[in-house]
Amino acid sequence: MKYPNGKRTNPQTSVVKTHHNTSRRGMKLENDINHANEYYLSNNIANIHKKPTPITIVDVSYPSRNKAKIVEAYFKVPSTTDYNGIYKSRYVDFEAKECRSKTAFPFGSIHAHQIKHLESVLKHGAIAFIIIRMVHYEIDYLIKAEDFLLYYNNTDRRSLPYSWIKEYGHPIGNGYLIPIDYIKTIDEVYFKEVKND
Amino acid sequence: MKYPNGKRTNPQTSVVKTHHNTSRRGMKLENDINHANEYYLSNNIANIHKKPTPITIVDVSYPSRNKAKIVEAYFKVPSTTDYNGIYKSRYVDFEAKECRSKTAFPFGSIHAHQIKHLESVLKHGAIAFIIIRMVHYEIDYLIKAEDFLLYYNNTDRRSLPYSWIKEYGHPIGNGYLIPIDYIKTIDEVYFKEVKND
Repeated sequence: MKYPNGKRTNPQTSVVKTHHNTSRRGMKLENDINHANEYYLSNNIANIHKKPTPITIVDVSYPSRNKAKIVEAYFKVPSTTDYNGIYKSRYVDFEAKECRSKTAFPFGSIHAHQIKHLESVLKHGAIAFIIIRMVHYEIDYLIKAEDFLLYYNNTDRRSLPYSWIKEYGHPIGNGYLIPIDYIKTIDEVYFKEVKND
Repeated sequence: MKYPNGKRTNPQTSVVKTHHNTSRRGMKLENDINHANEYYLSNNIANIHKKPTPITIVDVSYPSRNKAKIVEAYFKVPSTTDYNGIYKSRYVDFEAKECRSKTAFPFGSIHAHQIKHLESVLKHGAIAFIIIRMVHYEIDYLIKAEDFLLYYNNTDRRSLPYSWIKEYGHPIGNGYLIPIDYIKTIDEVYFKEVKND
């Protein structure tokens, strides 16, 4: 968490300049995960990428001969989670969110179809989870999608209490070279058990 | 192939209007695959998505209070293939290309890092392949990444001969409700053998 983050841009979709774009909130966690993914990729540990931000392109102009310039486009609500890939022959799929509240993670932070997506990939045999960064406590948690969905589908609450996160979440540590070594946590949570599913 | 394609837009990144954008070439195949993916998803057969087109956003404006408008952005060279997801607990990853030549598929149609990406996910245990639509013959082929790479890494040629594609490729048929039923081909190629890897 205390990793000296050098303003790394997302390799797939980088926002070079925006004016008070709220989508920049949570960029620190995104950058940390992208950095971990680059490390995993170049060391042949895993192949996991952030998906580019989905947009609807309305108009493209061609100011110079070989560079198309998008001049009108809009952000779209994503229909999947942001991250997926492969680790030890397993399909891995997750969403990552920063949580600024000290007491609970609001369900509103995750789009309904992202939750539906986690439910779907889980049924197909995925390793699926949510990474929640509790900003105030400076701790990242891996929350198994199974556990999250069990709570989510059986509550009238509109948020996941921090007490629940502490009990059922799996803290993610720093790696020697990376800010958030979530593959190590996957190893502990999914590969140390005799059989997970 | 003769499926009546109703101009379906890519659910992740749809180009509503462009002027002679060369990236629209190959949209027919993309639409067919997106349609198949929607069918697989809604019937709980597989969860496979096209990744949004990667772009670099340079400037965003806020004409109305709650809708950010991207006013300057550029297309980026993708660092992964376009499609990935999960089927029968296996990670699936592929690229799809239309080929207008009658004699060979030019290697230049696929970016070098996409080929590197296929090589990487294969090492991690993926089902990885390329779908090539031979436009003139109206046949789609599934080419296993293993087979493709073996040829690609051992030739001085700059294209994959059609004769090779016919010999090593696996033809993909139409489904009853979908234009390109590539999951059926995956079943034949990857799940009928005793052990594939």
